[in-house]
Amino acid sequence: MDTLNIGLIGTGFMGKAHAIAFKAAPTVFSLPVTPVCDLLADLDDARAAEKARELGFARSTGDWRALVTDPAVDVVDICAPNYLHKEMALAAIAAGKHVYAEKPLALSARDAGEMVAAAERAGVKTLVGFNYIRNSATQLAREIIERGELGELVHFRGRHNEDYLADPTTPHDWHTRRRTAGAGALGDLGSHILNMAEYLTGRHITEVFGQVQTVITQRPVSSGSATLEDVENDDQAQALVRFEGGLIGNIETSRIALGRKMGLAYTVTGTKGTLMFDQERMSELKLYTHDGPAGRQGFRTLLAGPAHPDYAAFSPAPGHGLGYNDQKIIEVRDMITGIATGAPLYPMFRDAWRINRLIDAIETSHDEGGWVTV
Amino acid sequence: MDTLNIGLIGTGFMGKAHAIAFKAAPTVFSLPVTPVCDLLADLDDARAAEKARELGFARSTGDWRALVTDPAVDVVDICAPNYLHKEMALAAIAAGKHVYAEKPLALSARDAGEMVAAAERAGVKTLVGFNYIRNSATQLAREIIERGELGELVHFRGRHNEDYLADPTTPHDWHTRRRTAGAGALGDLGSHILNMAEYLTGRHITEVFGQVQTVITQRPVSSGSATLEDVENDDQAQALVRFEGGLIGNIETSRIALGRKMGLAYTVTGTKGTLMFDQERMSELKLYTHDGPAGRQGFRTLLAGPAHPDYAAFSPAPGHGLGYNDQKIIEVRDMITGIATGAPLYPMFRDAWRINRLIDAIETSHDEGGWVTV
Amino acid sequence: MDTLNIGLIGTGFMGKAHAIAFKAAPTVFSLPVTPVCDLLADLDDARAAEKARELGFARSTGDWRALVTDPAVDVVDICAPNYLHKEMALAAIAAGKHVYAEKPLALSARDAGEMVAAAERAGVKTLVGFNYIRNSATQLAREIIERGELGELVHFRGRHNEDYLADPTTPHDWHTRRRTAGAGALGDLGSHILNMAEYLTGRHITEVFGQVQTVITQRPVSSGSATLEDVENDDQAQALVRFEGGLIGNIETSRIALGRKMGLAYTVTGTKGTLMFDQERMSELKLYTHDGPAGRQGFRTLLAGPAHPDYAAFSPAPGHGLGYNDQKIIEVRDMITGIATGAPLYPMFRDAWRINRLIDAIETSHDEGGWVTV
Amino acid sequence: MDTLNIGLIGTGFMGKAHAIAFKAAPTVFSLPVTPVCDLLADLDDARAAEKARELGFARSTGDWRALVTDPAVDVVDICAPNYLHKEMALAAIAAGKHVYAEKPLALSARDAGEMVAAAERAGVKTLVGFNYIRNSATQLAREIIERGELGELVHFRGRHNEDYLADPTTPHDWHTRRRTAGAGALGDLGSHILNMAEYLTGRHITEVFGQVQTVITQRPVSSGSATLEDVENDDQAQALVRFEGGLIGNIETSRIALGRKMGLAYTVTGTKGTLMFDQERMSELKLYTHDGPAGRQGFRTLLAGPAHPDYAAFSPAPGHGLGYNDQKIIEVRDMITGIATGAPLYPMFRDAWRINRLIDAIETSHDEGGWVTV
Repeated sequence: MDTLNIGLIGTGFMGKAHAIAFKAAPTVFSLPVTPVCDLLADLDDARAAEKARELGFARSTGDWRALVTDPAVDVVDICAPNYLHKEMALAAIAAGKHVYAEKPLALSARDAGEMVAAAERAGVKTLVGFNYIRNSATQLAREIIERGELGELVHFRGRHNEDYLADPTTPHDWHTRRRTAGAGALGDLGSHILNMAEYLTGRHITEVFGQVQTVITQRPVSSGSATLEDVENDDQAQALVRFEGGLIGNIETSRIALGRKMGLAYTVTGTKGTLMFDQERMSELKLYTHDGPAGRQGFRTLLAGPAHPDYAAFSPAPGHGLGYNDQKIIEVRDMITGIATGAPLYPMFRDAWRINRLIDAIETSHDEGGWVTV
Repeated sequence: MDTLNIGLIGTGFMGKAHAIAFKAAPTVFSLPVTPVCDLLADLDDARAAEKARELGFARSTGDWRALVTDPAVDVVDICAPNYLHKEMALAAIAAGKHVYAEKPLALSARDAGEMVAAAERAGVKTLVGFNYIRNSATQLAREIIERGELGELVHFRGRHNEDYLADPTTPHDWHTRRRTAGAGALGDLGSHILNMAEYLTGRHITEVFGQVQTVITQRPVSSGSATLEDVENDDQAQALVRFEGGLIGNIETSRIALGRKMGLAYTVTGTKGTLMFDQERMSELKLYTHDGPAGRQGFRTLLAGPAHPDYAAFSPAPGHGLGYNDQKIIEVRDMITGIATGAPLYPMFRDAWRINRLIDAIETSHDEGGWVTV
Repeated sequence: MDTLNIGLIGTGFMGKAHAIAFKAAPTVFSLPVTPVCDLLADLDDARAAEKARELGFARSTGDWRALVTDPAVDVVDICAPNYLHKEMALAAIAAGKHVYAEKPLALSARDAGEMVAAAERAGVKTLVGFNYIRNSATQLAREIIERGELGELVHFRGRHNEDYLADPTTPHDWHTRRRTAGAGALGDLGSHILNMAEYLTGRHITEVFGQVQTVITQRPVSSGSATLEDVENDDQAQALVRFEGGLIGNIETSRIALGRKMGLAYTVTGTKGTLMFDQERMSELKLYTHDGPAGRQGFRTLLAGPAHPDYAAFSPAPGHGLGYNDQKIIEVRDMITGIATGAPLYPMFRDAWRINRLIDAIETSHDEGGWVTV
Repeated sequence: MDTLNIGLIGTGFMGKAHAIAFKAAPTVFSLPVTPVCDLLADLDDARAAEKARELGFARSTGDWRALVTDPAVDVVDICAPNYLHKEMALAAIAAGKHVYAEKPLALSARDAGEMVAAAERAGVKTLVGFNYIRNSATQLAREIIERGELGELVHFRGRHNEDYLADPTTPHDWHTRRRTAGAGALGDLGSHILNMAEYLTGRHITEVFGQVQTVITQRPVSSGSATLEDVENDDQAQALVRFEGGLIGNIETSRIALGRKMGLAYTVTGTKGTLMFDQERMSELKLYTHDGPAGRQGFRTLLAGPAHPDYAAFSPAPGHGLGYNDQKIIEVRDMITGIATGAPLYPMFRDAWRINRLIDAIETSHDEGGWVTV
């Protein structure tokens, strides 16, 4: 196996980001096998052909079902909207394909659970695209925590706020309907910060107390339309959380947080130090460790560089900066390597299922007014 | 009435900050009456005499009860530890004095309620020293919100984290005992952010869901001692909150948050804009308003200047910077003016009582695992 | 000598800042003698009486000459416009008074030299109000450099940019005329950064190569007037500089730098580390020292606190923040202490004379197109 | 012409960055022709073969002369050290190839001039890799300036400081020798900020007054060696500059500036506003425009997004962040497009020649102690 044939479904924001990553990854990293942009599926044949040309895929199809059963395809890469993940993944798994899917894994924990079961029965490899955990500065944060440089963790604060639906005249799309998106901000963005919380701390969240709110309760059915329909999921959500081992924290998410464009941020506090990070400055990690002489202590700005995880493959020079798509290149490297070598992948379907269960638990907690155990 | 005689009880951090403010306020501002540093009380006569000399008070006493009944004293200024607030304030009120007290008002809502009742019966003026709401940038934040420049508020996030008890070898003092401090971080720092939440939004918090935690469960009884005793109140606390009118938010507080020195910060999100503020950069307010041409939007850094509330009295030049003690000078101006003119004071005992009720409610909520209405 | 009687001339921005400092200093610091706000001079008797009331001075006069010869006055504090410094200081020195003057010391190096000679002949104490060097974070910077924590210095970069004359419709005032101000931005703001350069590095600037420019060449004679007259001094200036011992650097100053309100900033680079500071964030010093493990290096934000010079007198709690006027309180403490104890003062007239010589040299260098030795 | 065959010489930092860009560009952008990674040259055949495999080139050679005359090669891409640029470029031009070269163009203005003449005689297309001008935030800066949003420019400040040679035990390499690098920091980094100054302002620098300094005067000949040899070019340099039309400014560069990793930064001041940028936060542009109500003015942080030049091709979502290599992808898009369509390229050899002339002029000015006209 020298190459791994990719079958990509979906050509929006994520489809293109994946395509760029497939093209660049073999030059950035030394990969055990080379991904080949083989087959692309879109809504119809014409559009698929055009997108294949744009994104550099050899073949195209207007039928994703043809893609998942295509004998040449090794990995099915699902970049379609959330509500299609389950059906597509189950079909791909049934065809014995490895599955690389965008987040959140499913519309509900129940659906995600079915997907986990199918994948594990079939023995295929899975990876879910929570790309922010691949950023060099965030990998560094994980490394600092894992090595105990913060001591025992005492608090986790995380948020992922954006403003892409802050304008009440923005019409419905699949994000705003329960049947196509599941949860709202909580599913789209909250999933990232919940995953980040578990990744960074190395612990599971075991209990949540949550609150969800739809602020803009109705939206036009289409751009400019006077017909309004109910928004079916949350615009913002927040939760207190308990992790294994007594660690506590809180998370927050919003899609109507004006001015926040890539508002994923975290503060992790331990008994020996603290980390702070903001994805809008994705190459900076702020580290405070309680040592050194009095009067010389303070948060240090660690600027991502070749001394940090995965940075050197992009540049030998510190501070030169990784970008959003570079995270996907790292993710693709991990996916390819995991499939080629059998190394464990994180987050695989089973890990991402947890995120769906946390989302469901926050909603349940909101309804019931008490802590919900996951 | 040309002068107002101040009787100051307590000469620690706060006592000195108040003294500086009394000295400077008449030069910074044009006051209706002049505060006179008349009488100072400390633990014994000798120490009181020495402190009166240091802080510039005319007379001194080792007996605070003598101070509160001294006929020349117009205002009793209570800068003693929390557990003494109630007794001192009730005595002062009984003697017909106006009372200016540090925060939190009392060890519990019940105690605070008694103090409110006594003050209102006696018709004396009261003010509680939540000084951070006097900072020019924060007054500006209030002004921006009040004028509707953010539209309808949709979210409030606040924290007040410090690290003054992060070291587990730091021994017990009055902060760590229930009978002398009441709540822990929640009372000392959380009170500030709760007050800030109500001040900025102009709304009452009506429901809380809270979580409190003592991380360092035992401390030495004194510096270097091998005898450990239980810490009796919280090291950190967090809560989801609901305000009047459907606004939601969350607050967080800690006294073990390594690296955070003046970690009071807030983000207020509305339907037209967002404000962000961090007290460690107390002269900067970040304002995003959703207007202007595409590609030219972003958070603006408003640097406190003479166009903003109360700044011009300190300097005619923008960006020159206010400091911590300047907040107290503004607070003293307000206190003096309220007493001299009868203008309403905020936060008076009744307002500060709310904060004690919120603190109690967060603790209750923690115990009961559900929302508590205030 | 228990008290030191202050005679203040000038009641604008600086006069008020000095008055606040005189009032607060004895409470903030333990002073060897107490400054007394004794006599105030302004343009006429009525205005002087009103300002004395406002600023808390015991007596007033419409004649500054009466003030400088008043037997009760110990220190003459000159806060009048630049062009009056020389005459007032010489008169005060002739009357045997100590002199505390605002910067720049004089309109030219020649004038400043006369003032130095007079003061030194008379044996009076002098201090010039370059207050930014008193800020706790900047004193810390000096301490770090002096202790060799940066190693050998290799570069100094400094600027002091503001925008108070950026608007071309702002009319002439004394700042814009050669005979009342001397140099323009270079004298008003450039003097600060030149002084800062010598203070921080502990070295004299020995050579300059400068460039000055008047960008807004004409201004209305008064607000709203259609009559324009030439601006007689620089709006912006910049220079390459050489210090003793081979250290090089550059400085920059402007009064038309839109958006910069308190734009004094410096970067000092050494063989072991680097310091960066911006007065708009006056409580933060960024320190990089080249030590610690690879991957954990970065600029640390030192937040001014009680471990740093002079901070503890204002607050025992770190990060609570000093303000502009607090710098003046420290300056007053130094002035009082120097006079009471005979301790050397910095910058005294002789030190400030250097700044005038540097300003003149930058102008000369501009005209001659080559390096000028100072 | 559907494809453009690339012949890459040099496989270090820059060679790899170019290779990544060639791979990704056709997916990121819609290109008029597709670049093909055809032939790679390195020091010998074996190394070239290995690097071709790593970087994804179809063919390889140990002889760059074979590459430049290879009939299949359309564009010669020179990523070899500075001292080889001239010989390689002249050979490529002689073979009728388009030339894409890294910066600085040559070791001296004289050499650069020969290259310009040859290229223009041959009519080939040229582009020099000053990649920082391609960053979305910096293209936005150019757009803001070009549209007059800052009014008339009054000042330019730029620096490019790094610390890659701050350690005196770092041995000589080609950067530190005159015959292999030409100027030191001034050539390697100063070239970027000089190019940036001309790009942003849209004006030529016409006069410079410069100062250069070698701080670490000797280095080991190889790692760990006790044999020291002289460093032959500057560690740091600075200059006052005059642009066409009266605009003034200053620039600074260093390779020994501890703590600065990607320290390219600029501040451009105009009569209506100001821009500030720091490449270490490459997705943030700070814009101050002097409008809006009093009290609401301040620097806005524009976070790069799809409303800004070239961003949307990387992501439809604002604030998600471009990285260093994305700049090269844009540069490759421009190079490909210029060759395919005949559109003018910037900076071509003629533009880059100016930078070499400015570098030489700064050195001459240092020696002569006066302004040098370019």
